[in-house]
Amino acid sequence: MTESWLDKVRWSDDGLVPVVAQDAASGRVLMHAWMNRESLAETVRTGEAVYWSRSRCRLWRKGEESGHVQRVREIRLDCDQDALLVRVDQAGGVACHTGRESCFFLKLDEEKWADVDPVLKDPREIYRK
Amino acid sequence: MTESWLDKVRWSDDGLVPVVAQDAASGRVLMHAWMNRESLAETVRTGEAVYWSRSRCRLWRKGEESGHVQRVREIRLDCDQDALLVRVDQAGGVACHTGRESCFFLKLDEEKWADVDPVLKDPREIYRK
Repeated sequence: MTESWLDKVRWSDDGLVPVVAQDAASGRVLMHAWMNRESLAETVRTGEAVYWSRSRCRLWRKGEESGHVQRVREIRLDCDQDALLVRVDQAGGVACHTGRESCFFLKLDEEKWADVDPVLKDPREIYRK
Repeated sequence: MTESWLDKVRWSDDGLVPVVAQDAASGRVLMHAWMNRESLAETVRTGEAVYWSRSRCRLWRKGEESGHVQRVREIRLDCDQDALLVRVDQAGGVACHTGRESCFFLKLDEEKWADVDPVLKDPREIYRK
């Protein structure tokens, strides 16, 4: 079976596409990540966000350790077909491994990056071994 | 003068960082683009979004042709320091060269990318020669 919707995405030379994850309820931009063909197909199949971890070089089922899965409400492609937007329901209201809602918690203020968002959950509570 | 806030960004091997532009008022994710060090510095200096155009290999002052400039309300960096979020006031309410509010107007629906957003302005009206 051909999956032409996957072919429509303009994958980079290393087979990736950048992905913006946005909370469908709050509208907050939660994180920036990457998908390859397999992870996008898995995202659609499972209904939960599956990324490609560039640091670990493997599929990363968001929430696999933390429980902070992202239920996908919709997937969008941009005009150049080289970026994706996923609108999600964020489990626990926490997307970031630091325990914050969003990974974008550093705000530029007078030539400094200021940490402006609260930690909602202690990371030690998120990642128990 | 050292600009340590610029050094805090983890630039890719080709000197770029991915950027998510979000409308500060509507919350819509408008586009995904790229900045290099110079374009980020120019963005801060001018208060308007300046990207790096990978296709044209030059600074791209958003709106330089279309007039659809993005007045920057805030700039955020993510937990890994390798992605930026700019929250902007979008001139004309149109970010996309197709005349739509957002570049993310293709929505995955039953294994097809459906064009779901209205064209707000005729591109021929935007790009007059």
